[in-house]
Amino acid sequence: MEFGEGPAAASLQRMWDQLEPIGRDPGSGGYRRLTWSPADAALREWFTVQARERDLDLETDRNGNMFAWWGGRGPGAVLTGSHLDSVLDGGAFDGPLGVMSGLAAIDLLRARAVSPDRPVGVAVFTEEEGTRFGLACLGTKLLTGTVDPDTARSLTDAAGTTFASAMAQAGLDPEQIGPDADLIGRISMFIELHIEQGRGLADLDAAIGLAEQIWPHGRWRIQFTGHADHAGTTRLADRRDPMLTFAGTVLAARHEAHRFNALATFGKIDLRPCATNVIPGTLLAWLDARAPDQGSLDRLVEAITVSARESARAQRIEFEIHRESYSDDVVFDPVLRSRLSEVLSSCRIKAATLPTGAGHDAGVLSGKVATAMLFVRNPTGVSHAPGEYAEPADCVAGVEALAAILQDAVTPRISR
Amino acid sequence: MEFGEGPAAASLQRMWDQLEPIGRDPGSGGYRRLTWSPADAALREWFTVQARERDLDLETDRNGNMFAWWGGRGPGAVLTGSHLDSVLDGGAFDGPLGVMSGLAAIDLLRARAVSPDRPVGVAVFTEEEGTRFGLACLGTKLLTGTVDPDTARSLTDAAGTTFASAMAQAGLDPEQIGPDADLIGRISMFIELHIEQGRGLADLDAAIGLAEQIWPHGRWRIQFTGHADHAGTTRLADRRDPMLTFAGTVLAARHEAHRFNALATFGKIDLRPCATNVIPGTLLAWLDARAPDQGSLDRLVEAITVSARESARAQRIEFEIHRESYSDDVVFDPVLRSRLSEVLSSCRIKAATLPTGAGHDAGVLSGKVATAMLFVRNPTGVSHAPGEYAEPADCVAGVEALAAILQDAVTPRISR
Repeated sequence: MEFGEGPAAASLQRMWDQLEPIGRDPGSGGYRRLTWSPADAALREWFTVQARERDLDLETDRNGNMFAWWGGRGPGAVLTGSHLDSVLDGGAFDGPLGVMSGLAAIDLLRARAVSPDRPVGVAVFTEEEGTRFGLACLGTKLLTGTVDPDTARSLTDAAGTTFASAMAQAGLDPEQIGPDADLIGRISMFIELHIEQGRGLADLDAAIGLAEQIWPHGRWRIQFTGHADHAGTTRLADRRDPMLTFAGTVLAARHEAHRFNALATFGKIDLRPCATNVIPGTLLAWLDARAPDQGSLDRLVEAITVSARESARAQRIEFEIHRESYSDDVVFDPVLRSRLSEVLSSCRIKAATLPTGAGHDAGVLSGKVATAMLFVRNPTGVSHAPGEYAEPADCVAGVEALAAILQDAVTPRISR
Repeated sequence: MEFGEGPAAASLQRMWDQLEPIGRDPGSGGYRRLTWSPADAALREWFTVQARERDLDLETDRNGNMFAWWGGRGPGAVLTGSHLDSVLDGGAFDGPLGVMSGLAAIDLLRARAVSPDRPVGVAVFTEEEGTRFGLACLGTKLLTGTVDPDTARSLTDAAGTTFASAMAQAGLDPEQIGPDADLIGRISMFIELHIEQGRGLADLDAAIGLAEQIWPHGRWRIQFTGHADHAGTTRLADRRDPMLTFAGTVLAARHEAHRFNALATFGKIDLRPCATNVIPGTLLAWLDARAPDQGSLDRLVEAITVSARESARAQRIEFEIHRESYSDDVVFDPVLRSRLSEVLSSCRIKAATLPTGAGHDAGVLSGKVATAMLFVRNPTGVSHAPGEYAEPADCVAGVEALAAILQDAVTPRISR
């Protein structure tokens, strides 16, 4: 990708070219940057080098979250950044754009000889996607005490490796993970820049967006247990085939999502056994559900559960549902959002305001510090897939917007 | 398992105790005996030792099928046997019972001082289940020229390893695979003993069954291609989610199977990507379909295809269906079946006659030599799962039945 002319474009270009090959799957063209994997180690090394080249003070917290500080480690720090891990076969922007833009914004401010009255930090948070260990925003959830360290340590990946063991193999001490009030106390605000994950800004004809709200959302693991049998000899009437109950549940979930103006997705399933000539004995399916408010989300999941349970009973299938994660509704700080709007207006950057269905570290941190999110337009709306894209000019506009916001935040004003 | 008193029971007990641990998965309690795996090597070594201990002449053909011959390699040989590979988490009887019973029957005939007028062989056929390389009865299909050697060599397992490469790693030469008219020409008849895979004999109150017919059956790979997108930000109206089309197809397949008095199963699917917060881009599903006659089978698969294609079009999903395998209707040799009935009657062994929906090497070989199948009662009907079971007394009855049949076949009669 070619970012064009100008200092922000030049900063982005250097970083893009270095990041582009790391963790890229040649088959899909997407990224497989799983936490504590070799690709993750290469990304952390890349960030370490970026900090060193800029003479930023690199801090790795007890949860593996990394911070590059300009002007010391606090207090009153203004933090930006995002994450570098990806979903399986994800795009190049989701996460890295926020980290690159934070570093590029610092480059811009320094080029403009801005002298901050407080520290500025760029963060890289651990396991934001939850791809490897199943729990999204794990780094910020540990940092803020939203998830219990024992729970986190015992999370396992698809191969059965625990978070603790993978973290130890990456050279960090899993015994130390957990909340860090001192670190949180040093941060006065967090501004996360992220590629938009839908077509909202494209429809509104704006390169930049300000997040108003994150929809409440969660993940539920559903187990349908029937009986494994020979596909060629077991009479239809004798079968206890969980695939049938699952299929009905998929259709019910879509129907209910429409009814609640919400979202419901089955993106992951696990069949045991999984063979052409065997009726599966057990089918595990993961429901991702999101809605504009918690009441709707709860009613949506309840309606899907009732439908699935009734089908299961009729088909002699055992049914269990277990909530794996749940994130409350997040409404970002209205005062901070209003200030950001003013700053962007004064720089003649058009910014739309919009909600999002996606969880982010900003949502987790919003419970502890004043938090805002900037989105960069994604013209096709593709997300979590190799086709994810932002125009170079929009990426540059994102850096300009973030730089203006950081500059405003670290420049003395009469009253703040 | 304890087989009890008597020479047939003693033979089975020795072999059972040796086979029992090979390829057993401690988690599921089922067997994972995949072709050319370490477990498969151990099974082949076991069979080699069995032949040596009985002073049988061991022959491995160019397709990895093994034969233990009593009285030379032909011509006019009477062959029995089955297979030792399993489905994933399969039971202990499916395959091995036929091999063990063949060897135990030879032990019985020798104990009775029977002197055969023609060779008797026990076969172990390669990749009967098709679990690893997706094509069932591969060993006999190669032997009889039913499958092309190039096609077989390029079959791949889940990890992308080809049949050729796995066979070479097991120490056999994949360049040599293919039809062997000389070997086939040495066989006058084949009698396969197998655990029943349904509850037919239990319902008929018979320990032993004679197969009348194998239903025509096949496997179809269906690819539903939509678009991978973020589960939290992609509006329902913008989605191209192949999971919905698949779910509708599962329900349609069950409906059509009822209508045609047939069987249709989706036991294996592959999602890409497979992550909770990503709408899958591609869903591969394998349809196993079987019916009492070819006309019904063709109409069943056509009806499922039409339904799936129409849903796919409505949901903006690309749809492709590809037939991976197809086995015609097999009607076993009626003259041989009638003779077997007489032999069993004269020994006071009650044998029922029944059809089966499962494919077998006997079905493949029936196109080349006179072939029959004996079933041993499976009281719960569980098959292709750890709970598969036959009573010890029924297993012993199976050996007695097979020994009587072999003795009849190799003892000179006035007219045959």
